[in-house]
This record gives sequence, structure tokens and C-alpha cells, in this order.
Amino acid sequence: MTRIRLGMVGGGRDAFIGSVHRIAARLDDQFELVAGALSSDPARAKESGQDLGLAADRTYGTYQEMAAAEASRSDGIQAVSVVTPNDTHAAIAKAFLERGIHVICDKPLAVSTQQAAELVRLARQTHRILAVTYNYTGYPMVRQAREMCRAGELGKVRLVHVEYLQDWLANRVELLGSKQAAWRTDPARAGVGGAIGDIGTHAYHLMRFITGLDVTELCAELTSFAEGRRLDDDARILLRLGSGARGMLWASQVATGNENELAIRVYGEQGGLTWRQSDANRLLHSPLDKPSRVITRGSRAAGEAAARVTRIPPGHPEGYLEAFATVYAEIARSIRAAQHAQPAAENVWYPDASDGLDGVRFVEAAVRSSAGHGKWVSLENSAA
Amino acid sequence: MTRIRLGMVGGGRDAFIGSVHRIAARLDDQFELVAGALSSDPARAKESGQDLGLAADRTYGTYQEMAAAEASRSDGIQAVSVVTPNDTHAAIAKAFLERGIHVICDKPLAVSTQQAAELVRLARQTHRILAVTYNYTGYPMVRQAREMCRAGELGKVRLVHVEYLQDWLANRVELLGSKQAAWRTDPARAGVGGAIGDIGTHAYHLMRFITGLDVTELCAELTSFAEGRRLDDDARILLRLGSGARGMLWASQVATGNENELAIRVYGEQGGLTWRQSDANRLLHSPLDKPSRVITRGSRAAGEAAARVTRIPPGHPEGYLEAFATVYAEIARSIRAAQHAQPAAENVWYPDASDGLDGVRFVEAAVRSSAGHGKWVSLENSAA
Amino acid sequence: MTRIRLGMVGGGRDAFIGSVHRIAARLDDQFELVAGALSSDPARAKESGQDLGLAADRTYGTYQEMAAAEASRSDGIQAVSVVTPNDTHAAIAKAFLERGIHVICDKPLAVSTQQAAELVRLARQTHRILAVTYNYTGYPMVRQAREMCRAGELGKVRLVHVEYLQDWLANRVELLGSKQAAWRTDPARAGVGGAIGDIGTHAYHLMRFITGLDVTELCAELTSFAEGRRLDDDARILLRLGSGARGMLWASQVATGNENELAIRVYGEQGGLTWRQSDANRLLHSPLDKPSRVITRGSRAAGEAAARVTRIPPGHPEGYLEAFATVYAEIARSIRAAQHAQPAAENVWYPDASDGLDGVRFVEAAVRSSAGHGKWVSLENSAA
Amino acid sequence: MTRIRLGMVGGGRDAFIGSVHRIAARLDDQFELVAGALSSDPARAKESGQDLGLAADRTYGTYQEMAAAEASRSDGIQAVSVVTPNDTHAAIAKAFLERGIHVICDKPLAVSTQQAAELVRLARQTHRILAVTYNYTGYPMVRQAREMCRAGELGKVRLVHVEYLQDWLANRVELLGSKQAAWRTDPARAGVGGAIGDIGTHAYHLMRFITGLDVTELCAELTSFAEGRRLDDDARILLRLGSGARGMLWASQVATGNENELAIRVYGEQGGLTWRQSDANRLLHSPLDKPSRVITRGSRAAGEAAARVTRIPPGHPEGYLEAFATVYAEIARSIRAAQHAQPAAENVWYPDASDGLDGVRFVEAAVRSSAGHGKWVSLENSAA
Repeated sequence: MTRIRLGMVGGGRDAFIGSVHRIAARLDDQFELVAGALSSDPARAKESGQDLGLAADRTYGTYQEMAAAEASRSDGIQAVSVVTPNDTHAAIAKAFLERGIHVICDKPLAVSTQQAAELVRLARQTHRILAVTYNYTGYPMVRQAREMCRAGELGKVRLVHVEYLQDWLANRVELLGSKQAAWRTDPARAGVGGAIGDIGTHAYHLMRFITGLDVTELCAELTSFAEGRRLDDDARILLRLGSGARGMLWASQVATGNENELAIRVYGEQGGLTWRQSDANRLLHSPLDKPSRVITRGSRAAGEAAARVTRIPPGHPEGYLEAFATVYAEIARSIRAAQHAQPAAENVWYPDASDGLDGVRFVEAAVRSSAGHGKWVSLENSAA
Repeated sequence: MTRIRLGMVGGGRDAFIGSVHRIAARLDDQFELVAGALSSDPARAKESGQDLGLAADRTYGTYQEMAAAEASRSDGIQAVSVVTPNDTHAAIAKAFLERGIHVICDKPLAVSTQQAAELVRLARQTHRILAVTYNYTGYPMVRQAREMCRAGELGKVRLVHVEYLQDWLANRVELLGSKQAAWRTDPARAGVGGAIGDIGTHAYHLMRFITGLDVTELCAELTSFAEGRRLDDDARILLRLGSGARGMLWASQVATGNENELAIRVYGEQGGLTWRQSDANRLLHSPLDKPSRVITRGSRAAGEAAARVTRIPPGHPEGYLEAFATVYAEIARSIRAAQHAQPAAENVWYPDASDGLDGVRFVEAAVRSSAGHGKWVSLENSAA
Repeated sequence: MTRIRLGMVGGGRDAFIGSVHRIAARLDDQFELVAGALSSDPARAKESGQDLGLAADRTYGTYQEMAAAEASRSDGIQAVSVVTPNDTHAAIAKAFLERGIHVICDKPLAVSTQQAAELVRLARQTHRILAVTYNYTGYPMVRQAREMCRAGELGKVRLVHVEYLQDWLANRVELLGSKQAAWRTDPARAGVGGAIGDIGTHAYHLMRFITGLDVTELCAELTSFAEGRRLDDDARILLRLGSGARGMLWASQVATGNENELAIRVYGEQGGLTWRQSDANRLLHSPLDKPSRVITRGSRAAGEAAARVTRIPPGHPEGYLEAFATVYAEIARSIRAAQHAQPAAENVWYPDASDGLDGVRFVEAAVRSSAGHGKWVSLENSAA
Repeated sequence: MTRIRLGMVGGGRDAFIGSVHRIAARLDDQFELVAGALSSDPARAKESGQDLGLAADRTYGTYQEMAAAEASRSDGIQAVSVVTPNDTHAAIAKAFLERGIHVICDKPLAVSTQQAAELVRLARQTHRILAVTYNYTGYPMVRQAREMCRAGELGKVRLVHVEYLQDWLANRVELLGSKQAAWRTDPARAGVGGAIGDIGTHAYHLMRFITGLDVTELCAELTSFAEGRRLDDDARILLRLGSGARGMLWASQVATGNENELAIRVYGEQGGLTWRQSDANRLLHSPLDKPSRVITRGSRAAGEAAARVTRIPPGHPEGYLEAFATVYAEIARSIRAAQHAQPAAENVWYPDASDGLDGVRFVEAAVRSSAGHGKWVSLENSAA
């Protein structure tokens, strides 16, 4: 099976998420990185390309240049990963989609609902894949949770609690030389949401992915604890979901002692589920009035949805990179199917532009509710 | 040291919390149960008295009778435990306070702010102790958490998340013969709050006890998930606390898979704390940018406040009954001090009528906010 | 129901285990402490008696005096708790048994097989109860584990691993004023075993209690890590058990970071069990090829054997003192049955003199094997 | 940087460990798989090569053929991964070493001390790398533990307990079509050790890697629990280590409920360490008389040795594949250094032929001790 030719925008030396995307693309041997516009600084772009063993003539100074050149090569890239700051996603994605190149975009898809909606339209028009890397959906036990919810093993869902807690912004590290912090706390580059956009959208997507429920209304309080910070570094949100379910979402980047604590709990009439990224290979299932069961990745109790995306036997932990790689592998399957003008197999799934649009809507609604002193705000959702 | 003579109202055969109060009173050998009005059913009252080895002439049919008779005996009770349904607390407490007998009342103190405020006044007037058994404050590691917060070890507190989750009301067991469920879900006996009153008040008090912060405003959503239930069985509440801190409180009796999961997390500028009742002998302390530390009950790292209320060496778990007994032991110390017309030692502490009043105010505010479609509601607090 | 009149030998001011025995005796309201020979120092004995509210004429200077005086009173003690250093257990137990008084003896029962066997005979002759407080058998989830093993839920047992780890003897605290350490590391008072006798016997008994299997042979290595210490502070032992099962026992008092980590794992052909004192209210059951199940104290999944000794609902932790109190409560039931010349109900169980004898045999065999450079040594066991 | 050209022997369709080696080789982009003798069945070998995108002329029927052909190509492989059953390792490794090709061999290195020692000599002679994939040494927190032990943070080490528990051989799955089980339980292919060779050697190596201590004597009991099985499926071993330390090793493939539970505890005079594969991103450090500290992968508390092999920020778990990839990355660094006739940087480390030889010696000693009814047996070790 030949590898899919991949390009990358952003992700030069010292960038964090670019290297994660590259490992994810490589892990299952479905992609080959062959081109890049790795930095807006031309010298850095060039050096970064050399680091990665790219051919000199496929190391570009700008994404526009790269889109044009690659589209005109017979061996040009078939897909591109976009790993730049939030405010540039829309324009970059557009440039590649319009040239017929599939796009794999880091989240959030865009910094406004308008931008995001435009991309959804464009992806449909061009019949190209526009994926958004809500990477936590790649964990096998998250897939398992989704399958159990969908199969009704919890009965009707009543309550969902999701939280994503970090502490790296407890101090104003954006003033102390952290580039990662600098753009994330700058409204011009990050958009209207701080923590809510950076990690809250992950939590929001995870909740919807697992439960299959839409959030219809929310009541948010966003706070900037670090003095002088212009975007929220903490968001607490009450949620009303479809079918009468209720929930809470908490995203924080000042929760001291938390590194990347993503956790979700779902309680239905017949049972509950708990999953934590810090213990990612286990899913706790609590059927009503019976002992809780520990479902492990790779075990017989894990169903088809988890087994599909499992690489190694139970007891040997798979982690974040494997989950991220699963998103890439699912995209690869979809690209291959698209190449044959066929739909991907039914169980193949990746987060797409609609999911990206819904994430942007969520951020805007949360900001609107919080600015309105916590009033309940309605939320539009893409059709499932 | 002679034991304090104790009476009990409620707590007859098959009652749950009465036997807990008796073990708690007995554990540290500070009280001797000598009288009781143990049931509103005279035959049951009598049998229950025999079960407990009470003298026949001190087994009463009504609390009024007991208050009168005991007050007139030279060896009459010095304190009384009130373990009846919520709606009767105020009248019973009043009857004993007015006769000069100290009162130890199960929570909530009363079913309305007015009732509770009246009791606060009465306790002051009569110079008698009116304690409310917010028993979770008796855990050594909760004392430790409080001491650390007060000493500034977390820096300025930014966030508090407290939750108390159960699942025993997932179905309408109140229709299936559960007496415990029946009165708790009946507004006439429980008051305006369901889960919020039964367990939310515990969570609320715990949060204030540890952080020392008042809640100034709240925004609540209370839900009755079980069809036809008249009181809330789930409450999710956003909180604004003194000094700009923010928080969340979640109380649920339909969170499938949770037995009595009481947990609190506090995040300050310099560190965080996590405590869970299910792992009660440990406190996780996460100083900013340093490894989390596991502080264990009885160890050298546990300070004076925890050591005072620790009975056995580290590694041997103390549990719920010991914590409850600590509340009783603290009350005993206070009664003994009062007998000598002295204040109790500075570090002696028990939840008193003001705490009870604040709990009732909280329930009423939460109900008001939820009824108002989640508007933010202000909260009055007793002076610390 | 009238309380059983109890005396105590040892357990004066500053003693640790005496106060544990007193709380345990009091917790379920089955015993009343009325007499004591609390210290070998007469002044301390007197003061300790006053602390506990004993009548002056029942605070004795010596146990001999107490045995004689109490046996001659019509309201004399019916049972006595012996909480002195190991070397004195046998003589004290003998003195009371011979006067018809039931004996509750801290472990180990004696410092030699000969002494212990003599006590077994004496208890039989006098028809008196001689209990040894292997207190960990009182945990409800330990009872549950035993019931499951006995019911064959694990299939044939293949492997048992039990460990009891502490670190308080990592340094030679016996030279730094610790009385507790001083007698435990002194062969004259502790007997031939150090860690193996002090905590290894608990682990040994727990393993046999749960599995119902006898140890037939052992191969031990005992070590004294702290320089100059005369008794072992660490013991690692390979075990051969009845029916071809195999096992390991590890007792250590120098395992840095462990407070009182008692843990047991049992693996059978059809499933496994794990229990840890630090998480005492849960039992992990792993049926072969199925998800592990978390059985909680007080839940529906916990069977009759655990339910019998459970005081409070699931989720509210019971701890060490409750487990110890259960041993006392079981002894009380047995004493009451004996008073009516009846056998106790079938499911009532407490560790008796035979168990104590087996514990002493185990220590001696381990010492013998270790001295023989790890040769396999056979072990005699009392008939079940 | 150009990738190292890699070949593979074994690892065809359906093989487990081959695909793990390939992911590990690919993850950090240091190797490119270009040739293979993937199966002893020629048809399967060919198909497997196609699956992996190998050129048809570099998909070989036998390893001998491959060694000859690749050695004669100017673009021939520089290294080969050997992932066949144990009994074939030695001959295959020899064939490639003799042609100047570096060898990366799955463990155990060989099935006899003699074979292994011969390979050690050959690797020295040929100046080629002969690595053995004791992959658990690649976990960052294992590196951290090693660094802390070496730096004396635990003081003098007294005790080590290591265990590797599985349950997949609880039944005789080797009779039910499991190929993996079939060769592992067959002395002709696996060698003299069953569980002790398959997973005990991992545990043994891990213990030595972390503590830096040699095992000087051991006393083993090996058991075959499954009826009719010819090799051990459970091994319990007492250990004496250098400097007076003592230890235990437990390897089991019948420990019901355990998937791949590899765990190690080290206790020194000044502190203890605990690491478990199931919680691989955390290391518990317990300094004597101070609270235990949770050192997390990627955090500031993790030192240089862990940081070197860390890919992603704390809180995002890295797992088994990343650890395996680290072993490959370290080998790549060493091969690159060798290409320039330089030593690798001082902190680069991979398990080499001496480690492989010591593993074989350990298995043979354990078998000898167990056959000798648990006598203590001395152990020779390679110079560090």
C-alpha cells in the first residue's frame, strides 16, 4: 500500500504540536511527509525542512507558494496538516481545499462561526476532506464509551460532567517568553476564547462524541484569574442537552497541580461511565446496583469500536500519540476511500468540518453567556 | 472524667443515622446515653429503649415529655441528640434549649431561614450549645486542608470544586418501601430542597470550612430526573466566593455508580489540594511547579489541626464513624468548658447554629436561582 | 442487653494498642471496662485507672492481684484483654483462664510453641474463650474474600501473595526513645521473631483465613538491615500450601514509604482477588477473561459474611477501629452463647488459641528455615 | 538526517512483536524498513513484504539469503531486527554480525549461556552493535528511577521487589490454537524457561537497570500450574544482591486478572520508589519520614535522564510503543556514532549483548535452583 503524500504548514523547529502531528501521521505508516511551509520565518522554514529530510525544492517560504507548487506537481501532496495559530487556519485551509488538497486542521477550525461555516461549505463543494484534530476521540476507551452509550447500555443519559484542567497558565508565562502561551492568550491570534477555545473545545467535542447528545443551551462563567490577562483562563459552564440531559463543563488553565487532566463522567438511568486521560486504557462502567466493572483496552470486554483502533495487547498502555495517530489513520482510510470515489467503511470516523464549526459556535456562545452575566444562551448545532 | 449524660430524640429501631450518632457519642467515651424519645410510635419507642439498655423510666413517648422530665432530674441529661426528619428539628431543639439542655442536631438545622435564625437567637440567649452535625468536618485530612488553606499554603484561592454524588435515588425507591427515601423526597418533611438539602448542604459547608471563604452569589440548576419526584435529585451550581474566587458545587442522588462520593478540590495561586472521602486518610497537595505530595493522616507532614483529632497511627485507616465521633468529641470539650463557664480551647471547633443557618440560606438561594431560570442570586452569610 | 464486664492488663498511659482495644470493645456497646492492671508501675497504673474512670478499688497493681480479686467478686470481670509485651502473654492468660475468666489476648499468643500449646490445652480444659486479636480478619471485605474463596468463586487456588510493609524501623528508633520499638526489637521480650512476629503473623493468619489453606512448607530469608539490630526487620518467605498452591509472604519494617501496607492477592484457576488495607472498603474480583469487578462494602454484591459485620452504608468508609471492634463483637457473641452453654451461631467467628498457636509455629519455622540458609522446612498446623 | 536502512527477520502477517518493532523503528523517524525475511513460509514471506511496501527483490525467503544479498548491495541494510522464536536468535544474529550488519534482537538473546556468550564475543570482534530489546528500560520514569538510584537519592538500597504478572496462560491455550502460546510453552523453541524466560527476564533486567545492583545468589521455585504444561508458568525467586541488598522476583502467566502488570519497588535507607507499567507516566518517590512525591513524566521534577527520552508534555500519557521506540532511538544514536567511529554520547544507553547474556544466565540459574529443591545458587554477571 503506498503512503499518502502529506504536506505541513507550521510546525517548524521548537513548535510542539507540529511534531505530534508528524509522529501521528507516521505511526501507522499511512502518510509520508514530503513538503512543508514550516515557518513564517524563511530561514527557520528552510532549516526545519532540512531537519525533517524534506527535499529543498519542497520546503516553501509561504503556504500560498506551497499550495500552488504542490498542486501543479504530478507527485504533489494529497493532504496537508495545518498546525499554525488559530487565526490563520481558515485562510490556509481554504487555499488547499481550493486546489483539491485534503486538509487536516488543528483545532479550533477557525476563530469565528462565519469563517468556520464558510469552510464547511467549501469542503462540501470541493469534495475534499476537512478534518479537525479533536484527537482525544482516538483513544480506544473513548470509542468504547461512545459505543456503549449508543447501544443504550447506560439507559437514557441524565448527566454528563466533563473537565479539562491544566495549570501551566497559573502565572503569566506569556510575559516570560513562552511562545505557546503568548499566542494563546492574545485575542488577535487565539480568537475570543482563551481556555474555553484551547481546551474547552476538546472537552465539548468529547462529550458530544461519547454521548451523541447536542448541547441546546448553556450558562457560562468565564474568568481571567491571572492579572492583566485578556482572555479567560478558566471556564465553568452549565449545560442543557438533548432529551432532557444536563451537564457541566469545566476548562481551566490555572488549576494548580493538573497537567492535562481530561476526564468525563456520564450517568444514565441504568448505569454510569468514567474515563480519564491519565488512566486512558481503562473505562469504568457502573451498572446500576451492580459492582463497577473495569473495561480494559484490548480485552475481550472491549467491543468492536475499540478493537478497531487498538494496536497492542491489554496491559501494555497506549497513550496520547497512539490516539492522535488513530485520528490520522481514520483520515487515511477516508482519503483512500475518496480516491476510489467510495464512502469509507461505516465504522470509520474522524472529526470533520461540522465538528469544527460546532466547536467555534460553542466558544462564541460561552463568551456571550458569560458577558451576559450568566444568562442561558441557545446553541445551534450541525446536523449529526 | 465523668461522661456527659446524653439523650436522644429519634433513632429508634431501623433508623440509620441514630445508630451512627450513638456510636459517635460512645467512641471516645465522652458521653453516656441515658434517656430517649426514640420513636413517635410509643411501642417502638419502648422496645428501642430496651434494645439500648435505657432505664424504663427514661424511655419517653414524646420529646416534650422527655425535655420536661429530664430537666427536673438532678441526674438529667446534659445534652440531647436530635435525629428526626428535617421538619421537626426546630421545635425539638427549641424545647431542649429552653430547658437549658445542649442540643446536637442532625443537619439541616431547620427547613426555613426563619426557623434557623430563631434557633441561632435562642442558643445565644440560653448560652447553650446548638451543634449541627456537619460530620465531614471531623476527618483529620479535612482539618489539615483547612489548616493549610488558612496558613496560605495555596496562596490566594482561585477555584473550588466540591461534589457529593450518590445513586440510591436513581429509581423512585420512595415508592418501593424505603422510609429513608420517602421523607427525603417529600417537601412536607424535607423542606424545599431534595438532594441540595440532604447532601448539598454537606458539600457547601465543607467548602466553606476548608477555604474560609463565603459564597456571595450563586447560579443554580436543580433537576428532578426521576419521573414524578417533587424535589430535586440533582443540583449543579456555579458559585462566586469572597475575594474573587469562583467555584462549582454538584450534589446528585442519581449519579449511577456513586455510593457516597464526597470530594473537594481547591486551587490557589501557589498550589492545589484534593480530598476524597473514598480515600479519606490522604490529602493530595500540589505546590505549583513541584511534584504533588501525599499527606497522610498521622504522619509527620500532617499538622497540629489534624493531629489533634487523630486516634491511630498512619496506614491504619480511620473512617466515617471516627470523623463523626470527632464532631462529638469537640462538642464534649465545648460542653465541659461551658460547664466551667470558660471558652473551649482555641483550636476546638464544631459546626454550630450559625453554620446551620447558613446551610438553610444556601438551599433557599439555590431553589430561588433555579426557579428563576438560573439567574445569579445573592447570599447572606453569618459573620464568621 | 447488659454489657459484658471487661478488665484490662497493660494499656496504661501512652500505650498504643491498649486504647485501640478499649475503643474496639466500646464501639458496639457490648463491653464495659470495669477493672484494670494497667501498668507494671504502680503509680502509672493508678493514674491510668483514673483517666479511664475506673473505680479506685478495681485499679490493681498487678495482674495476679486483679485475677484473684475479680474472681471473688459477684460483679467481677467476665473477660480480660491482655495488651502487654509478648513475653508476658502466656502467664497472664493462664492466670485468668484458671479463674474462669475469658481472655482476649493481643498477638502473638506466646513466645514459644510450647507456651502456646499449653494455653490451647488450658482453654479447652477450662471451657473458656481464649481469643487472639488478629484484627484484620474483622474487615468486611476480608470476610467477603473468605466467603468467595470458600464458595469456589476463584476455582482452585493456585497462588497467594501477602505482604505487610512498614517503615518505622528503617532507623534504629529503639535507641532513640521509642518504647514501642524497644521491646519489639528485644529478643527477651518479643521472642525469636522481629518483623516476622510483629506483623508477619498478621499476614500469615490473613492468608490462611481467606484461603482456608494450610501452609505445609516454607523457605525463608530473614534479614536485619538496621545495623546492630538483633531481630529481623524484614522477612521474605516462599510458601507451599495445601492442594498444590504456592505463595509468598513479605513482612518488612524497613520498606521506606510504607506506613501499614497490608495487602493480599489470591489467584485461582477461575479468577483472582485483591485486597489492600489502604483501600479497605473495596475488594477487586477478577473473573478469568472478564472485566474486574469492584465489590464495595455494604453494596448488594457483598454477601452475607460481609453484611453481618457491616455497620454503615456503602461509600462511607469503615476503617481499622471498626474491624478491630468486629473481632470484639464476635467474641461478645461467643461469650454470650457460652453463658447459655450454647455454641455461637455458625457464622460467628473469631481467631482463637489454635490460630495463635499456628502463628507461633510459623515464626519458629521461618526462623529455622532462615538459619538453615533457606532450606525448606515443614510446618505443623492445628486442625481447622 | 538520512534514515538508517533496516531489515527484519520474522514478523510476518499475524505476528505480534514484529509489528511492534516496526512501529518502534518508525516512531522517531530514525529507521526505514527496506528488506525482510518475514516468514519461514515463502508465500507468507512474500505477502507480508507486499503488505509492508517492501520492494519485491528485497523480500527474501530465508535470512541466510537476505544476509548475503543485502551485504552485497551498496544500499544494503545497515541493521536488522530479529523477531523470531527464541531458539533461532543465535544463528540469525551470527549470520548478520558476520556480514557487518548491526543486530537488534528480541529477548532472550539466546537459549543457552553458551550461545549467548558466543554472541557477546562475536559482537566485540565485529565491532557491531548487538542490542537486546529489553524495552521496558525505555520508559522515561524508569530512566528517572535509575537516575535517582544512581544519584543516591534512596541512600543505600536494601530491598527490591519486582513482579511481572500475566494471566493469558491460565488455561492451556497452547492446545487451542494460540501460536504465541505454542512456541512459548515448548522447550524445543523457548528454551529451559517458560514464564521465567518470557517475562521474568524483563523483570530481572529492569531491576538491575534501575538499581545498578547485581544479583549474586538466588533461590527459586518454578511451577507449572496448568496440567501437562512442560515449562514453568509461574516463578517466585528470592534474591541476594550486591552490597547486602535483598529482593524478590515474581513472574507469572497464570495470575488471574493481570494483563501485563510489570511493577517494581525499591527501598533504600533514605527512601523508596514505586513504578508500575499500568501507571507508567508517574513515579512515586517516598523520602523517609516525608510525604511521598508523585514525579510525573515531562515535569520539572523529572531529571535529565527522563527528559532526554520524553516526547510530549506532562499529563499526556506516553505508553509502551513510545518506550519501545526509545530503545530503537538509542540504538540509532549508537549506530550513527559507530558510523563515525565515535562512542555514543555518554548518556545514550541501550541493552546490549552482555545484558542478553546475563538474562540467559539468570534463567538457567533459576531452573537449577528450583530443580535443586530451592537451594541457593550463585550467579555470574557480566562486568557492568
